[in-house]
Amino acid sequence: MSNTTRADGRTPDQLRTITIEPGWSPQAEGSALISYGNTRVLCTASFTPGVPRWLTGKGKGWVTAEYAMLPRATNSRNDREAVRGKVGGRTHEISRLIGRSLRAVIDTKALGENTIVIDCDVLQADGGTRTAAITGAYVALAQAIEWARERKHIAAKAQPLTDSVAAVSVGIIDGVPMLDLAYVEDVRAETDMNVVLTGDGRFVEVQGTAEGAPFDRDELNALLDLAVGASADLKEFQFTALEGGTR
Amino acid sequence: MSNTTRADGRTPDQLRTITIEPGWSPQAEGSALISYGNTRVLCTASFTPGVPRWLTGKGKGWVTAEYAMLPRATNSRNDREAVRGKVGGRTHEISRLIGRSLRAVIDTKALGENTIVIDCDVLQADGGTRTAAITGAYVALAQAIEWARERKHIAAKAQPLTDSVAAVSVGIIDGVPMLDLAYVEDVRAETDMNVVLTGDGRFVEVQGTAEGAPFDRDELNALLDLAVGASADLKEFQFTALEGGTR
Amino acid sequence: MSNTTRADGRTPDQLRTITIEPGWSPQAEGSALISYGNTRVLCTASFTPGVPRWLTGKGKGWVTAEYAMLPRATNSRNDREAVRGKVGGRTHEISRLIGRSLRAVIDTKALGENTIVIDCDVLQADGGTRTAAITGAYVALAQAIEWARERKHIAAKAQPLTDSVAAVSVGIIDGVPMLDLAYVEDVRAETDMNVVLTGDGRFVEVQGTAEGAPFDRDELNALLDLAVGASADLKEFQFTALEGGTR
Amino acid sequence: MSNTTRADGRTPDQLRTITIEPGWSPQAEGSALISYGNTRVLCTASFTPGVPRWLTGKGKGWVTAEYAMLPRATNSRNDREAVRGKVGGRTHEISRLIGRSLRAVIDTKALGENTIVIDCDVLQADGGTRTAAITGAYVALAQAIEWARERKHIAAKAQPLTDSVAAVSVGIIDGVPMLDLAYVEDVRAETDMNVVLTGDGRFVEVQGTAEGAPFDRDELNALLDLAVGASADLKEFQFTALEGGTR
Amino acid sequence: MSNTTRADGRTPDQLRTITIEPGWSPQAEGSALISYGNTRVLCTASFTPGVPRWLTGKGKGWVTAEYAMLPRATNSRNDREAVRGKVGGRTHEISRLIGRSLRAVIDTKALGENTIVIDCDVLQADGGTRTAAITGAYVALAQAIEWARERKHIAAKAQPLTDSVAAVSVGIIDGVPMLDLAYVEDVRAETDMNVVLTGDGRFVEVQGTAEGAPFDRDELNALLDLAVGASADLKEFQFTALEGGTR
Amino acid sequence: MSNTTRADGRTPDQLRTITIEPGWSPQAEGSALISYGNTRVLCTASFTPGVPRWLTGKGKGWVTAEYAMLPRATNSRNDREAVRGKVGGRTHEISRLIGRSLRAVIDTKALGENTIVIDCDVLQADGGTRTAAITGAYVALAQAIEWARERKHIAAKAQPLTDSVAAVSVGIIDGVPMLDLAYVEDVRAETDMNVVLTGDGRFVEVQGTAEGAPFDRDELNALLDLAVGASADLKEFQFTALEGGTR
Repeated sequence: MSNTTRADGRTPDQLRTITIEPGWSPQAEGSALISYGNTRVLCTASFTPGVPRWLTGKGKGWVTAEYAMLPRATNSRNDREAVRGKVGGRTHEISRLIGRSLRAVIDTKALGENTIVIDCDVLQADGGTRTAAITGAYVALAQAIEWARERKHIAAKAQPLTDSVAAVSVGIIDGVPMLDLAYVEDVRAETDMNVVLTGDGRFVEVQGTAEGAPFDRDELNALLDLAVGASADLKEFQFTALEGGTR
Repeated sequence: MSNTTRADGRTPDQLRTITIEPGWSPQAEGSALISYGNTRVLCTASFTPGVPRWLTGKGKGWVTAEYAMLPRATNSRNDREAVRGKVGGRTHEISRLIGRSLRAVIDTKALGENTIVIDCDVLQADGGTRTAAITGAYVALAQAIEWARERKHIAAKAQPLTDSVAAVSVGIIDGVPMLDLAYVEDVRAETDMNVVLTGDGRFVEVQGTAEGAPFDRDELNALLDLAVGASADLKEFQFTALEGGTR
Repeated sequence: MSNTTRADGRTPDQLRTITIEPGWSPQAEGSALISYGNTRVLCTASFTPGVPRWLTGKGKGWVTAEYAMLPRATNSRNDREAVRGKVGGRTHEISRLIGRSLRAVIDTKALGENTIVIDCDVLQADGGTRTAAITGAYVALAQAIEWARERKHIAAKAQPLTDSVAAVSVGIIDGVPMLDLAYVEDVRAETDMNVVLTGDGRFVEVQGTAEGAPFDRDELNALLDLAVGASADLKEFQFTALEGGTR
Repeated sequence: MSNTTRADGRTPDQLRTITIEPGWSPQAEGSALISYGNTRVLCTASFTPGVPRWLTGKGKGWVTAEYAMLPRATNSRNDREAVRGKVGGRTHEISRLIGRSLRAVIDTKALGENTIVIDCDVLQADGGTRTAAITGAYVALAQAIEWARERKHIAAKAQPLTDSVAAVSVGIIDGVPMLDLAYVEDVRAETDMNVVLTGDGRFVEVQGTAEGAPFDRDELNALLDLAVGASADLKEFQFTALEGGTR
Repeated sequence: MSNTTRADGRTPDQLRTITIEPGWSPQAEGSALISYGNTRVLCTASFTPGVPRWLTGKGKGWVTAEYAMLPRATNSRNDREAVRGKVGGRTHEISRLIGRSLRAVIDTKALGENTIVIDCDVLQADGGTRTAAITGAYVALAQAIEWARERKHIAAKAQPLTDSVAAVSVGIIDGVPMLDLAYVEDVRAETDMNVVLTGDGRFVEVQGTAEGAPFDRDELNALLDLAVGASADLKEFQFTALEGGTR
Repeated sequence: MSNTTRADGRTPDQLRTITIEPGWSPQAEGSALISYGNTRVLCTASFTPGVPRWLTGKGKGWVTAEYAMLPRATNSRNDREAVRGKVGGRTHEISRLIGRSLRAVIDTKALGENTIVIDCDVLQADGGTRTAAITGAYVALAQAIEWARERKHIAAKAQPLTDSVAAVSVGIIDGVPMLDLAYVEDVRAETDMNVVLTGDGRFVEVQGTAEGAPFDRDELNALLDLAVGASADLKEFQFTALEGGTR
């Protein structure tokens, strides 16, 4: 790997400081305040018995997610989507990504006819908000499932979670593949990729975008290597948070 | 004052534990994470040179506020206003109250043609969210004005803030006037009042509502006494936060 | 009281000419066209058996209100809220105030599982539209209840109305507390207060706002005195209208 | 013409009682409260110098109209369009019809670069609301033009109005062509037609709809005859109102 | 008829080249791509068992229509209504016209409790889009009814269609009545009329508008003659398409 | 490659029949009706001089895209987004993808301060609508650039297009990687990937999603191989269309 030094002193394959405060919102069935460096996302899980009408009677549960950003999470203030009267395209896109990522590790039959809604609200944004949201959302989701099991909304032996899931961004900057981009890196990246991975390093989502020139197979492979390399660490942060977590 | 004991052990004229973390959002020109007991509100101030078109060229500044609640700030999840596509009546009403309260202590001429938008996002709700928002918003506002003065957007000698402003709820529960209601108290209150006060205990807003029977002059006076009595403490919390605050 | 003369020749403690035409909208279960001077509001009450879903089966009724202003009720035309696609904050706030005020004098159990919606549409605006709306809304509401009793939707002996309710604005202009502000007075008021009162002069809502400097306890008391002093007259206008009213 | 008697005792070719109160809204540049029997529409005209951007610099004025109905103008309450967040198809259609009808008698060059917006708000609906609106709108429009001439917004000799315009509904009920349908007639009509006419009986708009079976040329002719026959009377009501009108 | 030659070489009473491709959308229960010259509209019919709630249990079916235009169907691009967040007045008006026109030839009892939604999407616009839409919509509707009969959603002997329906525009240009206006003619027309006719030349809708001066009875008659004269041809195009149509 | 036979008789690495009709919308500056089997998308390009305000004065052009689906493009009808009043998440996501894909092959400096909006409207949907849209959009874009060059909106020697761009879906079904999925295949795919490629087989976007189990590196590689293998054919279809294209 390159010995390039980054603005914050990291090596190209180094994650930012990641912290997870589980149970930050005591009223929610699950919650976590996660930080990837200066990016901070509050993730809450809301468990309710029953499923949306279109799913009723199929013996399956439902997990969905909503992502949003506070107006001053960023360097300059953005108008509230509620005030503009509509959810923006970027917000929609990320909400859908988080929902799909979580559903990839959910056995909906084991969940039973129950619904879990994950809210990921970005309190501060410094790049990688969607990846931090996914990693934190998993913690909130796991807590909510445990909460439901304790109250027997879910059978004691049911295992709705088939694996853990986490995410990280990677990108190529000045020709160098780098892990977990901060905002100043993200805007300069020629290629930008968000990778959602299970705990054992397999892929749930791979979304790569050429911001400048198209990228070739070697570049794609280098980026995937970086992301896969981080998956064990991300899983570790999640498990530590869940073990220490109190709801 | 009555010797009634409250659910959380407070006396009727006692505030909940109030904490203010100034500068919580480092990207904003001013910010504070305020807690009134379990109610937590993140207040940020966004300073921008210039004013809305309808105010241009009058030599006056503008201060406005927006209030919102995260979907799972409460015991059960509420739909996002952005998803519903409109801002609800309660949200509008509180945003307007916060804006008026702050403008009551602003000398818009001294502010010059600059705009400050205060965002108050409720992260956890346990009663009194609008009063906590006002108290915290003042801290964020004062920081933003200091920030602007340092960068010479505002003249060094200008004093845009004419006073401090803070707020507290009061209500009558089982016939006893009480200060700073938690959610369980709020839902039981026969009369409910939000009082916005300057540092010296004068009134900026008085909003009293009979939730059950109408209230008489004596009850109104008892409630106002409680609120006035708390104003010095609220001011103290704000000043301590501002002295220790770093942006 | 001061001997100041007002623009329209009134003394500070004098109401404008108030007229109430009951039954103005013959198709509605209750209605009144009310004038406070040049302010004219058409209030209609719509009675329907049944309640919203969230209230079903509790043996209680529901009263709610909607306020709106015709586009050219004011000196210059305002865009229609329907055309803008959303209800504004001020409209929301006033609708909620009217609804709360009416519910303060309703025994929802005596009303039974029935819904009454009060619409208050401002045909001409010259200050005090929300207070005129409340005073007129009571008349429409009382008519609708009488209508329902005659058709046995409500038991003959049930008394859903526990009292009458009316409202008036008060404010301080050039240091003088004044009753029932016309628009030209309203824009000059240093402090502005809307007071909703029962027929015997107790308070249902007190909403005071410092438009300029904060107000002190003495000023607050002088304003409340003025409002309380007008409550008997307001009740009288309402009762006269209801006695003479035809539906 | 048939000797059929109608529910309200009229002959088939008889208008309902038509009254026009000019100047009902003293704050507007023109206004009229018009009644076609129990249908009552408040029409106001708002004059503003200048034109929309797409018309600027062409030396022409602009006249447009908006139609709306109060929620309880009808027998049962309808939701407000502002609350539903959008203007309905029927409302749009009628607003456009009124605007086109008025523009048909406007010489936009003579009007100069000025805009007149006509608001037609239905206070009570008993059939024929769009035709009453057009007839009343003309009165408000003529007043506003006179107002503008007096204030020299329009040249003293300019004649922006090229003719008068009014409207009436006609329909076939049980095979009998009838004039000016009340609501109970309207719902039974096999064919329903709204005719907008100039003072001399020429056509500005003809909108005929088969509600049941298609209609043939003879039926169409009979309906047009009825409408043309009423045009002199409608013109007479308008001119009487304008002569007596005070603003 | 006049010997005036039109821009595209037609005589005043001549239709443009009309083509109908039935079954263009194989997934729909009925469909037709219709051209009136360069105007091209894709009409699809969607059949679903059941009716809207307000019609349930009455033994009647429901037919409704929606009209829309692709953003670049016209010479310059228009914003999408979905992006603007609301359906425009013109769109609403035309959708309602198409729906009424189709319902005029539907026996809703014979249709049974089934719903057919007709979508008319304008792919290219060169005048007469609403009339082409009606003519094409009838073809899609007739196909959908045949589809439903084959699958026994409708009784074998039921005749939900009481007649055929088609439409054409007529107008007066430089004093000459002309049939089936292209866009360049439409913008110059002094009077513009859309006529919806049954196969035997009776009227379903007549919508005439004076774009410039009001029109008199003779002009109205000349326009109606032109439209009636075209009705047999329009019916012929429809029947040829339906005979050759494959779904 | 596997010898599995697919529902439509293709081999796993075989594209559906692809046809491109260039210049389908003669009023647009560029257009193409593209089919990937039964999926049909109408792509139009609208060229306008000038750029959005945020880009003014930077000497750069702007290319953006909007995707939508006709309500009955699918097997059962979907509500129109315009009627629902908002653009859905999926629509937003795909519009953004198309826009990014086209911008990846645009030299915005060479385009100069001009805007091209590409509309992709799905007339029939049978899987792969977003990939067909991208491939067709390129054709419309290239035509619009040629159109602008001929009219000297773009300099004769400027080369705003740096490469061609096309897209195809790939997925794993029953363990077999397959190219260009039809709808029935898409719903069964365990992993689904959309790949946007330049003419020489490099990547512009890679979006892979595990619909069932996570996918591993080998599966990812097999899918990328399939997509890369198709890129020369896609480029060939585009160039053939552009050579034969008339506007």
